[in-house]
Amino acid sequence: MNDFCPQDPPAEFLAGFAGFVPLAAEMVPLAQSRGRVVAEPLASPEALPPFTRSLMDGYAVRAADTFGCSESAPALLTVTGEIVTGQGQALPLGPGQAIRIWTGGQLPQKADAVVMTEHARLVDRKTVAVMDPVAPTDNMVQAGEDYEPGALLFAAGHRLRAQDMGLLAGLGITTVPVFRQPKVAILSTGDELAPPDQTPPAGKIRNVNSISLTALVEEAGGLSLPHGICPDDFGRMLALCTEAINEADMLLVSGGSSLGRRDFTRQVLAAIPDSAILVPGVSIHPRKPAILARQGNKALFGLPGHAASALVGFVCFVRPLLRLYTGQGPTLGLPTVRAVTGQPIFSTVGRQEYIRVRLTSQADGLPPLATPVSGKPGLMGPLVQAHGLLPVSRDACGLDEGVEATVLLLP
Amino acid sequence: MNDFCPQDPPAEFLAGFAGFVPLAAEMVPLAQSRGRVVAEPLASPEALPPFTRSLMDGYAVRAADTFGCSESAPALLTVTGEIVTGQGQALPLGPGQAIRIWTGGQLPQKADAVVMTEHARLVDRKTVAVMDPVAPTDNMVQAGEDYEPGALLFAAGHRLRAQDMGLLAGLGITTVPVFRQPKVAILSTGDELAPPDQTPPAGKIRNVNSISLTALVEEAGGLSLPHGICPDDFGRMLALCTEAINEADMLLVSGGSSLGRRDFTRQVLAAIPDSAILVPGVSIHPRKPAILARQGNKALFGLPGHAASALVGFVCFVRPLLRLYTGQGPTLGLPTVRAVTGQPIFSTVGRQEYIRVRLTSQADGLPPLATPVSGKPGLMGPLVQAHGLLPVSRDACGLDEGVEATVLLLP
Repeated sequence: MNDFCPQDPPAEFLAGFAGFVPLAAEMVPLAQSRGRVVAEPLASPEALPPFTRSLMDGYAVRAADTFGCSESAPALLTVTGEIVTGQGQALPLGPGQAIRIWTGGQLPQKADAVVMTEHARLVDRKTVAVMDPVAPTDNMVQAGEDYEPGALLFAAGHRLRAQDMGLLAGLGITTVPVFRQPKVAILSTGDELAPPDQTPPAGKIRNVNSISLTALVEEAGGLSLPHGICPDDFGRMLALCTEAINEADMLLVSGGSSLGRRDFTRQVLAAIPDSAILVPGVSIHPRKPAILARQGNKALFGLPGHAASALVGFVCFVRPLLRLYTGQGPTLGLPTVRAVTGQPIFSTVGRQEYIRVRLTSQADGLPPLATPVSGKPGLMGPLVQAHGLLPVSRDACGLDEGVEATVLLLP
Repeated sequence: MNDFCPQDPPAEFLAGFAGFVPLAAEMVPLAQSRGRVVAEPLASPEALPPFTRSLMDGYAVRAADTFGCSESAPALLTVTGEIVTGQGQALPLGPGQAIRIWTGGQLPQKADAVVMTEHARLVDRKTVAVMDPVAPTDNMVQAGEDYEPGALLFAAGHRLRAQDMGLLAGLGITTVPVFRQPKVAILSTGDELAPPDQTPPAGKIRNVNSISLTALVEEAGGLSLPHGICPDDFGRMLALCTEAINEADMLLVSGGSSLGRRDFTRQVLAAIPDSAILVPGVSIHPRKPAILARQGNKALFGLPGHAASALVGFVCFVRPLLRLYTGQGPTLGLPTVRAVTGQPIFSTVGRQEYIRVRLTSQADGLPPLATPVSGKPGLMGPLVQAHGLLPVSRDACGLDEGVEATVLLLP
């Protein structure tokens, strides 16, 4: 068993995140709140439901009037009226009486249960025969049974799903306080890069990271601000980075996977006004370290240039800070799946590794097989084939074939 | 062990889906393609990478010139030049020679490996000492090694993720053929409903389903067309439904959970011009059947009015058809997690049930506990507390406490 599956980013980054705080809150219309994160505890402003309602088509009754009845000895009740669904009515219900009601209808006062239509039979226009007894509260929902006024709906940090939005709609909460979406400036660096929509001149390749980092930022709930390609020129890069972080909460600089460039990116990030390097580089795999600097509460990341390294860096370092910015805490926050290694997995002691794996399903009831698809760091193929990352801890030298492990699913 | 976890919708609906076909394709800009589904097989238009590149900072060499070298007996090579990254150059590399190269640089002809900077030492301005031998192809990626021209990138039906978009960018594919997003008209019916932004008059409650169905449609990759609330009036409902489906691919009518209303919704759907009822109602739990009709390739769903039933209906019937519309096949397509039942789960033989469960984590290495949060169908609380649905098959009467089961995670 390998039960190592950290939801924490590597320790160096987690320590670096300590000084960052969540972004401000803003109000958004409920209809646009899917996937947004609640910024303060939300309490119910009123009772839900606001009045006692029927859950069935049937007859509102006093339950005691039906006790002991049966198919052969039905309880005969006098039908004294009908509740019109959607109207507040004050029909009185006396002992031995029943009032016709439909799903969603407001129960008359003194009624404490509903007999389903299926268990009742009209004997004549004024009399219903009840064949099956009901207990108090059967087939109805009492006012406030779902939420009492003041009840906690969601704690701060809760990410809103469809059903959560439905609850807020039901309570009339049509604007929601949520954390502002982090604005993330994205810059690719490298003299060898050309825009994807151009045929690259000899010696150049197309820029891959701007597109994929933009998509990753959006998946993580951020707003991306693409800044294109910057050549390996200190002055231009410093000017571009300084301008980019001005209007953003976070800057991602990809490139700098080579030795010289790495120092270069670090120097640029260090030269941005009021910046401080927090993490000068961390040894993980796929290799190529990432850099973290800060400018107040703004984060400056130097990510590797190779697509696989940039993606793993995003998932393991950047995404947790985006989560912190939106009040969710600096965890990876990725769904996981239990799998069995399909072949031995090799790893280096002293280095946290994230092995790209492809999952293939096995017979019913068996966990899927996780097979490494690692290749040379410059290749896109293994990355596109991967379903997830299998973390191997610093103190392990790998995993045998056929052992259980937890896989982080790629977003 | 309960290994029943269908990814198929209930058989009646699956049969009803047989006559529907995927929507047409459209071209979208690559940057807007996240989550969209590829509509035709995509092949590589060119080699990736387009030329042989270095993966490291170091020296381009003929590998044979380094065979047998070591720290104590380095191979001495003559440095004849430097590759400028991002420029197409035709520097010749003779035997016994080395050319300085940086990550991403284009390898000179006749070079078949790169010696990393860490394994080389400049002896003088013209001579480098190589301390560690390299094999051919070490520290480089050959032209076409990632993808050859014509290689399959993605089959039709593949949903694009960030890394997939990166690959397409790398190949210069900046517009992508994807299935058109299904347009889904959403209508809530019921005399008891008021809009969420109003204080409901006596006897009315706020409309919950329009908001949550809208969010579910968007999560599933569709475009929602909200049509508000329709009273229980045959003529108005027929007119509204007929108009709504005119401009949409699918219509969701929620409400009609009561006996009378269910027939009413069915009659309205049947009266829409050129429509045919495919599934008049299916017995699942949370109870309240759903209805499926068609008008050509357009689908008309009657969903229950209770929020929990509407959500389960959406996930089990509607979402699979949205997936079919976008070429992904009519499966539930939900992530699953293995869990252990935290208490006995009761179910009715002869009825497919989807038990709402809350997952709580246990000690490391143990699957999470799944505890039912089912409550009365009109309540929002259990739905908001639920993380997933635990399916129990028609032929089972429930599950014991402490057995393993697969849980479908709610979107």
